[in-house]
Amino acid sequence: MMIQVFGVTGLPEIGVDNDLAEMIHTAAGEQGNPLADGDVVVVTSKIVSKAEGCSVELDDIAPSAFALSWAERWEKDARVVEVVLRESKRVIRQIGPVLITETHHGFCCANSGVDQSSSGAAGRVLVLPKDPDASARQLRRRFAELGVDVAVVISDTFGRPWREGQTDVAIGVAGMQPLYSYIGQHDPHGHEFAVQELCVVDELAAAAELVKGNTSRVPVAVVRGHYWEADDEATMAPVLRDSEKDLFR
Amino acid sequence: MMIQVFGVTGLPEIGVDNDLAEMIHTAAGEQGNPLADGDVVVVTSKIVSKAEGCSVELDDIAPSAFALSWAERWEKDARVVEVVLRESKRVIRQIGPVLITETHHGFCCANSGVDQSSSGAAGRVLVLPKDPDASARQLRRRFAELGVDVAVVISDTFGRPWREGQTDVAIGVAGMQPLYSYIGQHDPHGHEFAVQELCVVDELAAAAELVKGNTSRVPVAVVRGHYWEADDEATMAPVLRDSEKDLFR
Repeated sequence: MMIQVFGVTGLPEIGVDNDLAEMIHTAAGEQGNPLADGDVVVVTSKIVSKAEGCSVELDDIAPSAFALSWAERWEKDARVVEVVLRESKRVIRQIGPVLITETHHGFCCANSGVDQSSSGAAGRVLVLPKDPDASARQLRRRFAELGVDVAVVISDTFGRPWREGQTDVAIGVAGMQPLYSYIGQHDPHGHEFAVQELCVVDELAAAAELVKGNTSRVPVAVVRGHYWEADDEATMAPVLRDSEKDLFR
Repeated sequence: MMIQVFGVTGLPEIGVDNDLAEMIHTAAGEQGNPLADGDVVVVTSKIVSKAEGCSVELDDIAPSAFALSWAERWEKDARVVEVVLRESKRVIRQIGPVLITETHHGFCCANSGVDQSSSGAAGRVLVLPKDPDASARQLRRRFAELGVDVAVVISDTFGRPWREGQTDVAIGVAGMQPLYSYIGQHDPHGHEFAVQELCVVDELAAAAELVKGNTSRVPVAVVRGHYWEADDEATMAPVLRDSEKDLFR
């Protein structure tokens, strides 16, 4: 089995209400690698946020007393801190000036995924898409209208406990289940797997990052040759560990 | 940029003192995909453990009182529990019958990476390689003798806090640095990256898992087309977050 991973280059700067699927479909065709049935299209969340207008004008934000004092302590912009807090349902930990939060979606990450550097305009910050699964489904539907049956993964760059360095993970999915379970299958020695479930969408997001890079303007990658079973009910919900079962929140 | 990821099939069952690099080199050639300069060869730790004889005969293990009581509570084999504890420097959490430990190497994972299902013999368990960086360096050197300049990543399948599903991550590396830093570089808007460092070896391990699968006997994958800068001093040390700086231990 061979998979190929390539970036989709030549996308213009994304603006509000752009038809992202159409732009990706066109750019892939123009670079000589048209999208094909069975591809997994991995889209960096920041361009989804841009297309959906998920940005905040900092001048419109009135920081709370807590945001003000915390921002002062760490020499941060209190309005950005306020946005980080508004995007969260709880603060899990604080590491120096970084807040590790659980977002309203249930993702645990630094600063609620609020992105100060990519909004393309001073005085604005990007926030994560409101419902990344819905965004992914919308992209998948639109790709289908354009004639290709592809799965869609929306990715972001997250840190993690214990290990230095960030990796790209999935925050939205459409068309395929995020987890692949080996439970009940047998290894080559005949042992039945009792627990193993792989988070395939995170592995797809990670593979995509290898060709995207963060300084080059390649916010989309295609993974070709990875088999997935079509499932239009799929969401990221199975990946979000119940906080009751999680000993690290 | 395009990367290709493919599994190396046709490897025989691995035994102690097998020349793993030679076997991988031969198998890749025989399947028509000979290793080439610049490849990253991702090797599942379990076959490294097998080649290095990193297994434990359970009959030789005398469980401690703690291992006995804990095993009884969770209906586990007390000898396996004892091996898990011996392979750890501390227990971080306990989730039902699973111990989340920090291994002697500094990896945080379930059951110290002790593998009951893959030893190939009843009454034995596999443990992680003693020094996976040294194992990787040894493989890289041997591949060089066979005529190819490749980086080597040794991978294992780990769970993680917050997210369900496991992913493959790196536990050993040779030939390339594990982290890629964007610090000091600029994004397309001219903003300087202040913090971003990607854990490229974990992304390579994740990409490799997509073609390995766990039930098929494909313990090795090759990532071709990923640029890495040769560095023979590289180890996993930069990935292991200092426990003083880690708020989740």
